[in-house]
Amino acid sequence: MARNANKLGLIFSTFLLLTVSAAAQNRPVAPDVAALVKGYTGAWREADPVKREQLLAQVWAPDGVYTDSQAEVKGRQKLVEHIGMARQLTPSSSHLELSPVESHHGRFRFAWRSVMPDGTLSNEGMDFGELDQHGRIRRLAVFFGPLTPVPQTK
Amino acid sequence: MARNANKLGLIFSTFLLLTVSAAAQNRPVAPDVAALVKGYTGAWREADPVKREQLLAQVWAPDGVYTDSQAEVKGRQKLVEHIGMARQLTPSSSHLELSPVESHHGRFRFAWRSVMPDGTLSNEGMDFGELDQHGRIRRLAVFFGPLTPVPQTK
Repeated sequence: MARNANKLGLIFSTFLLLTVSAAAQNRPVAPDVAALVKGYTGAWREADPVKREQLLAQVWAPDGVYTDSQAEVKGRQKLVEHIGMARQLTPSSSHLELSPVESHHGRFRFAWRSVMPDGTLSNEGMDFGELDQHGRIRRLAVFFGPLTPVPQTK
Repeated sequence: MARNANKLGLIFSTFLLLTVSAAAQNRPVAPDVAALVKGYTGAWREADPVKREQLLAQVWAPDGVYTDSQAEVKGRQKLVEHIGMARQLTPSSSHLELSPVESHHGRFRFAWRSVMPDGTLSNEGMDFGELDQHGRIRRLAVFFGPLTPVPQTK
């Protein structure tokens, strides 16, 4: 886990370096949104609040806002705490699976599924997010459950 | 069509009145997001730019931002024009079908499908939006196509 965290740290350091040098050259930042989502979901997998804060520091804006149907969480530090609280309500044996991340214009979406070791679905949802000018997540809205489909009329 | 537009106008006037009186009493505004989406999608159905502007004036923030994978449109008047342009590229005989709207904390999502008279799919997508403090749409991101599903690992 620690080795993975280090590896993730290296990936994000490189990513931030590229971001900063792009800004210095006044080119538009084109962040790797999939890497941001990997860091963010990594924070949900991380039991240690200090490591969780380190992960979020790379990907989450200091004043970023998280919302789901049950919660509205303003600021990175509050999110570190919220994830800790939510993790206590989640079966620790469940495994988080992600769809590919789709994005345009600093907006992105992905779907996820939390699955028990026996394959039973624990929870599922879809996250919709937006980046700030520094290429960090500034807001993320989670919708639990599958999207209600468009009714078939034909 | 004119009668429907009047009816819609009445619905939105009532809605705005309720919104204003809630604000005056310092209660949180709880806008009917489904009605907002109805007004917004109504603007996509409306061929007349003047009527389109009237519809959007009820539901879209003056500085609201629309994005899809092909376009970023800032401001209500620009959106009136963008819809006009996009309508010229869309088969006029297609019919727009909507899923129920889901929302929390001023965020919402819905899916849609544009269908030809013979039932053939013309286009489909999912819209994610956010309201401003006055209960109007301040940003909307459209993702075309079906969401890429989470891979089955079990």
